[in-house]
Amino acid sequence: MKAAVSLPYSGNLLLHHLQSSAPRCCSSTILPPPSSSLLFITSPKTHYHNTNRPRLFNTVRTPTTTSISALSSSMGSSFKPEQARVPPALQLPTPPITKFKIGLCQLLVTADKERNIAHARQAIQDAAKKGAQLVVLPEIWNGPYSNDSFPVYAEDIDVGGDASPSTAMLSEVARVLKITIVGGSIPERCGDKLYNTCCVFDTEGKLKAKHRKIHLFDIDIPGKISFQESKTLTAGETPTVVDTEVGRIGIGICYDIRFQELAMLYAARGVHLICYPGAFNMTTGPLHWELLQRARAVDNQLYVATCSPARDASAGYVAWGHSTLIGPFGEVLATTEHDEAIIISEVDYSQIELRRTNLPLEKQRRGDLYQLVDVQRLNSQGNA
Amino acid sequence: MKAAVSLPYSGNLLLHHLQSSAPRCCSSTILPPPSSSLLFITSPKTHYHNTNRPRLFNTVRTPTTTSISALSSSMGSSFKPEQARVPPALQLPTPPITKFKIGLCQLLVTADKERNIAHARQAIQDAAKKGAQLVVLPEIWNGPYSNDSFPVYAEDIDVGGDASPSTAMLSEVARVLKITIVGGSIPERCGDKLYNTCCVFDTEGKLKAKHRKIHLFDIDIPGKISFQESKTLTAGETPTVVDTEVGRIGIGICYDIRFQELAMLYAARGVHLICYPGAFNMTTGPLHWELLQRARAVDNQLYVATCSPARDASAGYVAWGHSTLIGPFGEVLATTEHDEAIIISEVDYSQIELRRTNLPLEKQRRGDLYQLVDVQRLNSQGNA
Repeated sequence: MKAAVSLPYSGNLLLHHLQSSAPRCCSSTILPPPSSSLLFITSPKTHYHNTNRPRLFNTVRTPTTTSISALSSSMGSSFKPEQARVPPALQLPTPPITKFKIGLCQLLVTADKERNIAHARQAIQDAAKKGAQLVVLPEIWNGPYSNDSFPVYAEDIDVGGDASPSTAMLSEVARVLKITIVGGSIPERCGDKLYNTCCVFDTEGKLKAKHRKIHLFDIDIPGKISFQESKTLTAGETPTVVDTEVGRIGIGICYDIRFQELAMLYAARGVHLICYPGAFNMTTGPLHWELLQRARAVDNQLYVATCSPARDASAGYVAWGHSTLIGPFGEVLATTEHDEAIIISEVDYSQIELRRTNLPLEKQRRGDLYQLVDVQRLNSQGNA
Repeated sequence: MKAAVSLPYSGNLLLHHLQSSAPRCCSSTILPPPSSSLLFITSPKTHYHNTNRPRLFNTVRTPTTTSISALSSSMGSSFKPEQARVPPALQLPTPPITKFKIGLCQLLVTADKERNIAHARQAIQDAAKKGAQLVVLPEIWNGPYSNDSFPVYAEDIDVGGDASPSTAMLSEVARVLKITIVGGSIPERCGDKLYNTCCVFDTEGKLKAKHRKIHLFDIDIPGKISFQESKTLTAGETPTVVDTEVGRIGIGICYDIRFQELAMLYAARGVHLICYPGAFNMTTGPLHWELLQRARAVDNQLYVATCSPARDASAGYVAWGHSTLIGPFGEVLATTEHDEAIIISEVDYSQIELRRTNLPLEKQRRGDLYQLVDVQRLNSQGNA
């Protein structure tokens, strides 16, 4: 074991680098980092990503002299599974509730914004009446999905009230019905920028998180589907994890689901459920929609819920539909076709622990060979 | 732009850390690293991972003063997609051949080793006769898949000849038939250790790479399937990438496929095709076998080929079968049920470029938010 090195900022990789000059017995041996690199993190009390941007995680460092021994007794393996995520993965937090019903509202969206808001309100009420404690809406549910429409239907969410009738409605129904809402997405106007934004409301109607689509949908499959969200939209700057009354939820919007790194990062932040409001299309939908959802769930051993608009064959962008709930074994728990539908299904977080016991992937990862770095969480620790 | 900092070893993360003390305009802004962190890598000439363990990659660093401007003109984005892989992803190399036929030999394996070797030889000859230039065999094809059998059927591959009749046969048929063989796997004895090992032979019969299963199959699904490879086997120490006459191939064995990081790492090393010899079982097979293959292919936009033993319902471990070839859009190009079969199908590497143009994921990744580190490649550069 090498002596501890005092460094201003921690992180395994930094130490890997500094250690590179040390003699090694063979090319593939990675020396364990000095103890100063090992951060032990308690399950954060509150780290909602809201518009005030508090630091993402509260971290607790163990004393330098004890952390290595604590690590070796708890981890054991020479393959450094705990280093496969940087910072190390957080323990799965105990959710406030283990079993609950989720409602996925696959809504038909029209050009009439007032109608869309009233229609979504009704669907949320129906889902709540059927017992849903968490309701998820589709991507872009307050108007058509098109670059022409985004500026027209955009709302100033931070100003709220009349400046954002769509989210004002969500806040109100969440409070009245005492449910959590993952509000799909609407075009958001902020200064001179537009975002594709998902708002999460708690049971008191409070805006708990706002996710701006991180990966803009810029694709070109000639003769099939071409779209460039970046013509009008700006990409978000941060992943979004929110603690709710129905567990810790990570948010992604549509194309975000193609980036496996985001789901891995959410899993390492202790997320129980990833919600992806998303409008796949008639080309990528049949090819990849279910595949990607199941892959994110099985690889990260957590729940995945998606919610699409219903299909309108006459729309400029025709959505695939097929909103779905996936369990942590990659199993399709509930799904639908492309018409309007409200899916009500049960989430049982005990399944996460069960599957992670069956297949203990987290303990089997090879941190000596690969590491996924959560850049913002790492930086927030460095500045703690 | 900050001034370049001279450091003994490079890597974006190191520089992130050193920069953490710099003032930042907001919590999610990541400053660009100084130019010394940017490694530009030429497509390596030869970097076979063979038993002599040469350094994995030859790297070329651009002069410190020019690398930042080169980067900004070539990448453009403020999201640092090139930093989503550390070291930066290699360009996809031009393969020696664009289109060729692959043969997947789903073999019935018995307790009779001599018969298994003769049977595999015949299947390879049949596949070559049908035009296969690359033939893939199943996981553990020279004897039963069980902890009791591994030591009995194990061979000393490094000694070769009579000490390894299974690989001697593979070498001979590869040379005689002038084909590339990804030789499934056999139990390997090396000193007092046993490995689950895949050998790759070139068209001259030369052993080009040896992959020892990195992630041992230790799972426990009560009442369904429990297995602990670690009771008898030792895990391999390194990912395996090999340049062959049919392109750059990454190797994984069975349970290795569950670890998405390995496939991501292979993609960043410029692999065209990942071959996973694997024997999923009657529980995980129907649940996950095709799902995982398709996920690895679509997320990394490359070809995936799997080869399972045929099903023997009377065996101690009953294999799922369903050997499959997947294209870079996650599409099933060829597959089979559980009986013995030789799948012949066409690989067309031009599809990789096509799909990466359709969905330019590599340019859309958010290196400012997440980074996958290839630890050994990074270290090999640090010591270059």
